[in-house]
Amino acid sequence: MRMVDLIQKKREGGELSQNEIEYLIGEFVRGHIPDYQMAAFLMAVYFQHMTEAETFFLTRAMEYSGQVMDLSTIKGIKVDKHSTGGVGDKTTVILAPIVAACGVKVAKLSGRGLGHTGGTIDKLEAIPGFCTSLDFDQWVKQVNEIGIAVAGGNEQLVPADKKIYALRDVTATVEEVSLIASSIMSKKLASGADAFVLDVKVGSGAFMKTLPEARTLAALMVKIAARSGKKACAFLTNMDMPLGKSVGNALEIIECVETLKGEGPRDLTDICLSLAIKMVEYGAAISEQEAKNRVLERFENLDALNKFAEFVRAQGGDTAFIEEPGLLLADVKVLPWFARADGWIGRMETEEIGKAAMVLGAGRETKESVIDPAVGLVLEKKTGDAVKRNEILGYLYYREEKRAEEALEILNRAIDYDTEPVEAPRLILDIVA
Amino acid sequence: MRMVDLIQKKREGGELSQNEIEYLIGEFVRGHIPDYQMAAFLMAVYFQHMTEAETFFLTRAMEYSGQVMDLSTIKGIKVDKHSTGGVGDKTTVILAPIVAACGVKVAKLSGRGLGHTGGTIDKLEAIPGFCTSLDFDQWVKQVNEIGIAVAGGNEQLVPADKKIYALRDVTATVEEVSLIASSIMSKKLASGADAFVLDVKVGSGAFMKTLPEARTLAALMVKIAARSGKKACAFLTNMDMPLGKSVGNALEIIECVETLKGEGPRDLTDICLSLAIKMVEYGAAISEQEAKNRVLERFENLDALNKFAEFVRAQGGDTAFIEEPGLLLADVKVLPWFARADGWIGRMETEEIGKAAMVLGAGRETKESVIDPAVGLVLEKKTGDAVKRNEILGYLYYREEKRAEEALEILNRAIDYDTEPVEAPRLILDIVA
Repeated sequence: MRMVDLIQKKREGGELSQNEIEYLIGEFVRGHIPDYQMAAFLMAVYFQHMTEAETFFLTRAMEYSGQVMDLSTIKGIKVDKHSTGGVGDKTTVILAPIVAACGVKVAKLSGRGLGHTGGTIDKLEAIPGFCTSLDFDQWVKQVNEIGIAVAGGNEQLVPADKKIYALRDVTATVEEVSLIASSIMSKKLASGADAFVLDVKVGSGAFMKTLPEARTLAALMVKIAARSGKKACAFLTNMDMPLGKSVGNALEIIECVETLKGEGPRDLTDICLSLAIKMVEYGAAISEQEAKNRVLERFENLDALNKFAEFVRAQGGDTAFIEEPGLLLADVKVLPWFARADGWIGRMETEEIGKAAMVLGAGRETKESVIDPAVGLVLEKKTGDAVKRNEILGYLYYREEKRAEEALEILNRAIDYDTEPVEAPRLILDIVA
Repeated sequence: MRMVDLIQKKREGGELSQNEIEYLIGEFVRGHIPDYQMAAFLMAVYFQHMTEAETFFLTRAMEYSGQVMDLSTIKGIKVDKHSTGGVGDKTTVILAPIVAACGVKVAKLSGRGLGHTGGTIDKLEAIPGFCTSLDFDQWVKQVNEIGIAVAGGNEQLVPADKKIYALRDVTATVEEVSLIASSIMSKKLASGADAFVLDVKVGSGAFMKTLPEARTLAALMVKIAARSGKKACAFLTNMDMPLGKSVGNALEIIECVETLKGEGPRDLTDICLSLAIKMVEYGAAISEQEAKNRVLERFENLDALNKFAEFVRAQGGDTAFIEEPGLLLADVKVLPWFARADGWIGRMETEEIGKAAMVLGAGRETKESVIDPAVGLVLEKKTGDAVKRNEILGYLYYREEKRAEEALEILNRAIDYDTEPVEAPRLILDIVA
């Protein structure tokens, strides 16, 4: 088999066999296929796409390109959740303790943020002392003891995705649904869970800008899971505005605690509960109604909040901030953001809002950037809210004046004031199962 | 400027500016743009193509990516010829002395063969003592003294093409007309001639399989030359059968001498004269009719043959073979090829015939292959000829029995016997000016 022939076959719109795809991924990971051939192949895939069968075989070949996690020492059905990434998306930090409080084990690997999107590991590390670098045995042991553990990504997992993603990023071949689906699902499958609840973000702050493309991705991922013999469903959720009010690591952790106390923003609370119900339905193998009852009970009686505290302690974190959130925001300065017109907030360029938070130091411009956990944004108004000129839209938490000014400029460009009332957007747009 | 943005722009079907194309080529040659980004770009070009303006800017950027030849020390209008490559295409060896005998200077750089196609340098090196590695000063001096010199390609010329072609070859991005045209024309323009006669081969033994695609390439190359302020025209010539009777380096040199003696095959003679007339028209700045008269005169009175002998001597070659062709074929064995049926020769898979010659050792499978000048094929019958079963179709000149058998098998598969008369194909299909 020659790589040039496989490139040509795909270029001509042909369908690659499982054997061909395994060769392609295997030889690439072993360094026998050079980056330039893979780059040409990826661009051919961008134009000619991949069939569902090809995407499944690609996912599988990537899944097995490195270590695959064996979670058999954790009893019960393991349910994982994945979000395609957005702005202010802190759902994992909230729903993981809810699900664990319902008796369903949460053995989670999470990542860091890049660009305008955040990452669960960065958020958790805003908690003093919190350690995310657990080894496999520690991680499994903690899940077996308290039902929940969250660790940083395992470097041995899916090396094919690391190599291919790095290449896609610099060759303008990121936006192809078969490559996105196989990248996500290979990592999910390799991390060993039995069922998956996927949160596909849609809108100006998400990777998928429109509902149809998000639906295509969601359906493809659910099918890949099914072909792998795993249960999965995908929520399509709104990312035309940030989720909740806070963007920035410590600010988001504080918002998570408020939410677990029952005092969080409605949109964030709703989506966390919805995703948690589905995870408990899968993980406890009960009906949706039973799952709903159990989730609401453990959420309302603060079992979930207590599970969160237990989880933070187990990973070495200081829980004092749960009662005293200000502890996470020491020495940070605050600048209010004022409305420039009367009206209703129409459009929010959510990716730009994410970038404003990044400029403040809450996110990474490159993988090497150092983030500041205490900086970020709190939004008091979102799409659909009526505002008056000079009313406060939100607050910037900052360290450097110059960065705050730059972020403020970005924010002012990122919203529109409508002269007519605007309906608040729906949060859950669809569920694909 | 970032390469990833240029890839994306082309991927989306955008038109790159001259500035962007210069950046792309310049930085690639300097090694600042990695192969994998260029590979992705080339595949995007394969799908989205390039406009005429982009192709011109690409050609120009490539032309100036290295040394550019200055032929001002050669008096008069310098005319170059280029063939897109075929099987048995030995026109340069014949027409160059014809043109020189007409008083038009021929300062030619030629290449070696690869795969099923031959190269002028390989053919000339079948002549004992013939030296093709002239330095620039020797080459110019010889042109000024005897009106003709042919040397191997200058390594300093168009480094961008060398790097890009090597990449296209292994990334399935060869077959895109803008890339083909810019590759050819950048090299032609960099070699410093004032006018160009292009021979675009069309058919089963050529790179361009169909007349429409050949016409597109021809028109594009002529336009690039015109935008560069150079005269050019392109002949579209038939490569649905080998040109002349011989395929193989010494055999082709022998056929060239026969042709210069006026005893060559009709098709080969006609095309060499037609191309020579156009070159003399450009080079002597005379009318087509005047050029025709002069070419026929110098061809028929054997001035051209004598110029050939002078040329061979000037480059160190032994001219004894001109009278005694067998000197070039020492110790080679000959095997006849018999017809397997009665009928008319219909289709000739010319690329396969080229491969049969390659298998005998006349061509290179890879750049590192060593060729044997004495082996090859002589075809006694071609498309349109009536044949009887067991009549001789041609001869294989070989060294190793095993290779001859393999070549014979390829040849037998490469032709069809029709039961109805078949018209002999036209040789010159069109002229694009």
